Amino acid sequence: MSLIRQDPTTKEWVIIATERGRRPHDFERTGRAPTDKAREASCPFCPGNEALTPPELLRCESPEGTGWAVRVTSNKFAALRQEGGLRRRDRGPFFREMDGVGSHEVIVETPLHNRVIPLMGDAEVEQILRVYQARYQVLRDDPRMKYIIIFKNHGVAAGTSLEHPHSQVIATPVAPMLLRRKYEIAMSHYDDTGRCLYCDLVEAEVQAKARLILVTDHFVVFHPFASRVPFETWIAPKRHQPSFAQVCPEDLAEFAQVLRKTLHGLYSALGNPDFNYIIQSAPAEDENKAYYLWHLQILPRVATIAGFELGSGIYITTVVPEESADYMRDFLRGAGPS
Amino acid sequence: MSLIRQDPTTKEWVIIATERGRRPHDFERTGRAPTDKAREASCPFCPGNEALTPPELLRCESPEGTGWAVRVTSNKFAALRQEGGLRRRDRGPFFREMDGVGSHEVIVETPLHNRVIPLMGDAEVEQILRVYQARYQVLRDDPRMKYIIIFKNHGVAAGTSLEHPHSQVIATPVAPMLLRRKYEIAMSHYDDTGRCLYCDLVEAEVQAKARLILVTDHFVVFHPFASRVPFETWIAPKRHQPSFAQVCPEDLAEFAQVLRKTLHGLYSALGNPDFNYIIQSAPAEDENKAYYLWHLQILPRVATIAGFELGSGIYITTVVPEESADYMRDFLRGAGPS
Repeated sequence: MSLIRQDPTTKEWVIIATERGRRPHDFERTGRAPTDKAREASCPFCPGNEALTPPELLRCESPEGTGWAVRVTSNKFAALRQEGGLRRRDRGPFFREMDGVGSHEVIVETPLHNRVIPLMGDAEVEQILRVYQARYQVLRDDPRMKYIIIFKNHGVAAGTSLEHPHSQVIATPVAPMLLRRKYEIAMSHYDDTGRCLYCDLVEAEVQAKARLILVTDHFVVFHPFASRVPFETWIAPKRHQPSFAQVCPEDLAEFAQVLRKTLHGLYSALGNPDFNYIIQSAPAEDENKAYYLWHLQILPRVATIAGFELGSGIYITTVVPEESADYMRDFLRGAGPS
Repeated sequence: MSLIRQDPTTKEWVIIATERGRRPHDFERTGRAPTDKAREASCPFCPGNEALTPPELLRCESPEGTGWAVRVTSNKFAALRQEGGLRRRDRGPFFREMDGVGSHEVIVETPLHNRVIPLMGDAEVEQILRVYQARYQVLRDDPRMKYIIIFKNHGVAAGTSLEHPHSQVIATPVAPMLLRRKYEIAMSHYDDTGRCLYCDLVEAEVQAKARLILVTDHFVVFHPFASRVPFETWIAPKRHQPSFAQVCPEDLAEFAQVLRKTLHGLYSALGNPDFNYIIQSAPAEDENKAYYLWHLQILPRVATIAGFELGSGIYITTVVPEESADYMRDFLRGAGPS
């Protein structure tokens, strides 16, 4: 079973997921063969290899009746599992620990091994987002799950070992301290102004114009003022909506178009860069509060997170967001850079 | 000039260092040639190529009189520079910005292109640490510098583009929010107990024994209870000492031995892994307070920081620190694993 432990100096949690299978000696460089061997084996996410994954949690059939279009299974090397208790144990004065209870799922986005989102049709992307939302809603109805994060690792620099397009959902039984900190700041803003910090921020980006990439009926896409990495991109709804669980079907269809178009822009501008995206959403118990706005963050991994970032929490980026936004707008217009 | 901006959702700062020289189009994958070309050129840190670096800030001659042993220069692509003002500008309701004032230096650890710390003698390592401390002391006496971080990126996965052994020092005119958060927690512990959180934590690790790697007269080396990455290692002094500036020469010599031995253990156990290390130290204005203990953190980069970590702040590691510590102790005894 995995363990969840708390760092006494930051109060942040870590997950020790030993079932992911590497022992101390596996980290020796000459011992990295298992990864290489895995690449030789058949892709566990391709049709016909369904037996290589844990049992399905959800399957959407393709409209053409040619098999599944999107599949969800537990992660074979799950960081957290449904089994276990919620009680915290003190294993010494500063050593707080609990069972690795939670959920860790894989969403296989397409049966096609190389069909990435930028090259999909809008309906395919919408299907993936509907699956995201369906799993999100199931997990947020489980009172043990305090935080649910949907994310995608695309490319080796973004932390994926499998090429076949897939996303992941992790539900944790603890609230991340990073989220707590963001809530403190957002609540302070609400107490001062009576408004949602994130809604105000999106409105300020719309007014400022310089970092905007795309504005549709219900969504705004921009490179944030204090981008942490080159081409960091946020997609946020225009009106207040704390949780991704609350997005209505019409808006989800529009979000699919916006996400595909944004990722296509990055794909064209940067040449299929490695990236992570993350859906940031209010915890279940805060879905009806005025403090948070769900949004999707895209973090291209074109630079390496190094010692300064890890030690200070301050990122060094090398591109002014106003310039990268300007550059991206050209690609979204379908034209190359001037 | 670089810019420092504040993220309105986390209050954390980012540095936008445009002088590091990449324009938006440089991130296109087909445009990555400059990095490759740089590798073909002469190493700027090798003797004879001193003209390739900015003017020296410090030079230590080798005891044999054969030239320099350690050199410090400004970083040629400095993220922060001495020029600029400290005034913060509001470029809109949520858009706080200031000049990129500060310092960014490179410490060339040896004239030899491939002589890494694990393979050095203790006297060589001690020389490097004396240089660290000399630069640290100069910068902390500049009242503009609110935080000083000494760090090392070893290997491509740790974010370095230059092979020749070197470290860096960055001084920022703002306190990182990560540090503020750690201080809040440490001050709360002090208010409850009258003791330094970090000293108590080190003592608890000594008592617990299971994660200890090495204990000397004045230092303790351990894999922390809530390690974020496999083989995360902390070296901390045994007695309360907030700042790295305060280490006396005798302790610095002992620290050199401990650091070399610890890095040699990692080098042997993991086969010269990529890693970052960071000296965490109290800010100048807190050097005489009871809240913080300087320490060195080593973070091997054997796994990739992915979407979950970036989105939640929670790390997933795959090794139990008690097991990695046990494994490392074998290497520090000079024996292989059993």
